[in-house]
Amino acid sequence: MRVCGIDCGMETTGYGVVEWDDRLPRPDLVWLAAGGIRPPRKAHLPERLAAIHSELVVLLERWRPNVVAVEEVFYSVNAKSAIRLGHVRGVALLAAASARIPVAEYAPLTIKSTVTGYGLAAKQQVQFMVARLLHLAAAPEPADAADALAIAICHIHHAQTLAIQEAHAS
Amino acid sequence: MRVCGIDCGMETTGYGVVEWDDRLPRPDLVWLAAGGIRPPRKAHLPERLAAIHSELVVLLERWRPNVVAVEEVFYSVNAKSAIRLGHVRGVALLAAASARIPVAEYAPLTIKSTVTGYGLAAKQQVQFMVARLLHLAAAPEPADAADALAIAICHIHHAQTLAIQEAHAS
Repeated sequence: MRVCGIDCGMETTGYGVVEWDDRLPRPDLVWLAAGGIRPPRKAHLPERLAAIHSELVVLLERWRPNVVAVEEVFYSVNAKSAIRLGHVRGVALLAAASARIPVAEYAPLTIKSTVTGYGLAAKQQVQFMVARLLHLAAAPEPADAADALAIAICHIHHAQTLAIQEAHAS
Repeated sequence: MRVCGIDCGMETTGYGVVEWDDRLPRPDLVWLAAGGIRPPRKAHLPERLAAIHSELVVLLERWRPNVVAVEEVFYSVNAKSAIRLGHVRGVALLAAASARIPVAEYAPLTIKSTVTGYGLAAKQQVQFMVARLLHLAAAPEPADAADALAIAICHIHHAQTLAIQEAHAS
């Protein structure tokens, strides 16, 4: 199973592609790609969104993940931040829908607790655990890429739990 | 000049295409098209956004407006509504950017006061004046279409004012 996590943001949209490889002698998470999409700062909003969208389209075409995973929206942010985030999230979900890739959403608490064991973990702890789980020498840069990888790992973990539960139930 | 007003909304996204025809004996606003885009209610969010986006792409391709006009975001709404609106607005701005059509934004107060002479006008007054300015027998349906036409008329009015000011300055 291959998952692309996307951490939406107007300044930087992080992405991280992770595979769960069960053909390994000991099945494990495999890091495939990660990075940050930074639209031109001085461009107008529509052009910025077009830049983010077109990079995501290329990315999904290149890696063909089975699932796109994003953070659930948390409503504690103010309306101004919420609408900015909404713009980016809109074009990200559109890119997934156009590529016919299903989208899974996880609450920030779920993502942190899956990756670190603690729902209120600090950003650095998440980055540290992402590097460790993916056997990377250092935390991926930018931080948004690490967050995106955490979202992808969260989906893989939950999909596995689901599969185990289904196996037990059947 | 041809303008497409878009009134973004998750349930219904209104659109209205208006032309300022200065080849008429007496230059006037001309109604070209209006309607509401309603994505399938039961579809998941990414598919709904894809439906809205693809209808807007077809619309802009069909009418080829010189400008897309949208409402400025007002931040009095709550974060949950703001993010829903942001998703739709994101794909609408993307559709404009992909078609290389510039986007103009107007505050709700500006739109209402341009069309009715009163910034706090009721929805019905806006609909009545839109019908009147466009020489329509009745207010366009749905209400979101009338709102979109009001946004388009607002842009035409302001573009004209700008042109007159420029002529005086030169």
